[in-house]
Amino acid sequence: MDDNVVINFTPTGMIPTKSMTQHIPVGVAEIVEDVLRANELGITMVHLHARDEISGEPTYKKEIYGEIIEGIRKYAPYLVICVSLSGRNYSELELRADPLSLEGFLKPDYGSLTLSSLNFNTMASVNSPTTVQSLTAIMKEKGIVPELEVFDIGMINYSKYLERKGLIEAPYYFNLLLGNIACAQADLLHVGVMVKDLPEDSLYSLAGIGNNQFKMNSLGIAIGAGVRVGLEDNIWLDSSRTTLATNMNLLERIHIIASANEREIMTPKEFRSKMKLEPGNGKYGRNYD
Amino acid sequence: MDDNVVINFTPTGMIPTKSMTQHIPVGVAEIVEDVLRANELGITMVHLHARDEISGEPTYKKEIYGEIIEGIRKYAPYLVICVSLSGRNYSELELRADPLSLEGFLKPDYGSLTLSSLNFNTMASVNSPTTVQSLTAIMKEKGIVPELEVFDIGMINYSKYLERKGLIEAPYYFNLLLGNIACAQADLLHVGVMVKDLPEDSLYSLAGIGNNQFKMNSLGIAIGAGVRVGLEDNIWLDSSRTTLATNMNLLERIHIIASANEREIMTPKEFRSKMKLEPGNGKYGRNYD
Repeated sequence: MDDNVVINFTPTGMIPTKSMTQHIPVGVAEIVEDVLRANELGITMVHLHARDEISGEPTYKKEIYGEIIEGIRKYAPYLVICVSLSGRNYSELELRADPLSLEGFLKPDYGSLTLSSLNFNTMASVNSPTTVQSLTAIMKEKGIVPELEVFDIGMINYSKYLERKGLIEAPYYFNLLLGNIACAQADLLHVGVMVKDLPEDSLYSLAGIGNNQFKMNSLGIAIGAGVRVGLEDNIWLDSSRTTLATNMNLLERIHIIASANEREIMTPKEFRSKMKLEPGNGKYGRNYD
Repeated sequence: MDDNVVINFTPTGMIPTKSMTQHIPVGVAEIVEDVLRANELGITMVHLHARDEISGEPTYKKEIYGEIIEGIRKYAPYLVICVSLSGRNYSELELRADPLSLEGFLKPDYGSLTLSSLNFNTMASVNSPTTVQSLTAIMKEKGIVPELEVFDIGMINYSKYLERKGLIEAPYYFNLLLGNIACAQADLLHVGVMVKDLPEDSLYSLAGIGNNQFKMNSLGIAIGAGVRVGLEDNIWLDSSRTTLATNMNLLERIHIIASANEREIMTPKEFRSKMKLEPGNGKYGRNYD
């Protein structure tokens, strides 16, 4: 296999709490520590969700994202960093876009962009066409790249529409997230149709919700794609849910499977080159000029 | 081909206005007239959207739905009738559910149920899990059947979840709607995966937005399924958009293709029997006892 495995490390997410698992990193120092240990083991990029230090609730605040990014880049200045722009807990565009105003050493490379509205298990996640297009416009102006989050087939079609409108530009990085109850499932046909629909020269990772994480990660390695892995999507080490995982447990397993498949982990430098990003180490995001 | 073609006639919808096409029926008398003419030609069921008589805007009001249904059933007492429960223009559950309180001779057989949130071209259509489940519960209590509206693969999975929760019961009727910008496309693989995922013994119709209508209708006939057809989804007769269609134009074309494919139109009586509905002519919906 020629292609190296993209590992998109997603340590925190919005849902897991300390009462669900003590292993979930929620404070700035905890998140930074997990990311730096992951970086030592070998990852390509990190998908960050910030939490309020006191309540543990998700927060959009750029100050907290800034502290996390500063802590990571002090020791891992090349690692590709994506900030969450999720509207699950706050819908106003200005709040969602807050982390995009970080600059210089703190500027994220990517901002997450869910390409449509959808339902999660207990709530709707509303990303109206106006919001999606406004977020892409802000990112383009700031030189930040959208991490394209796909939960069902049609969202890939919408990315092509955004391209036709000049709001996003190749090369693209997609997360294909399988197994949400009202979205595409961890099913070979669903994944196959999605992969076939991706724009040429895209990089992509497979993610699975809960027990689907390991299945989709293994599939991602088997077919020459990447993986999105971490406690955000799954807090268990085993499918019978007897043992809580740490982020390092999950990552070590990915390394074992990748190695057995004779595939190397894609370095941040290689990813930056393929995705036409700035080189890292002080210059981040993409220069659209 | 053994299976008869379900024709789900959708004359009005929420979008077309008189300024877009004079052929769109919006008043009660206009809608009733189009439905009765369609019934004479041969259709299986009708998917109704009511409009305010003065403004022409979509309305949830059961009084207007009741007038339309009365007008239709006076001359077509067996025709299967579905009312729209769309939340596109009004989100409150009580408003959306208003037409479900029609009773006796005015009781609809079906209520439309979009199985998740999604984006249309310019706006989000929010159908939260709570709303979807509440609408199914009301319909079950009233003996009205959900017409399952599917815009992307994952919505079929959600119907299976509703079944496991005991909120809906086989046999099912699905509309598969292809070609919305952020949803599944009028693409053989997309349709094929959907059809493969449907619960056994379901009836279903293929619908396409705009120019996709004719393509998806022809496909529906070719593969032994049904069609959803009418000005709701497409106001043009030709793909180059030079000639505005009437509802009868669109229906006559379906009859020609069905006939050339040696397929008969499924009668309302046959549909009622297959879908375990009440027999019509005074008894409507489904008896869940």
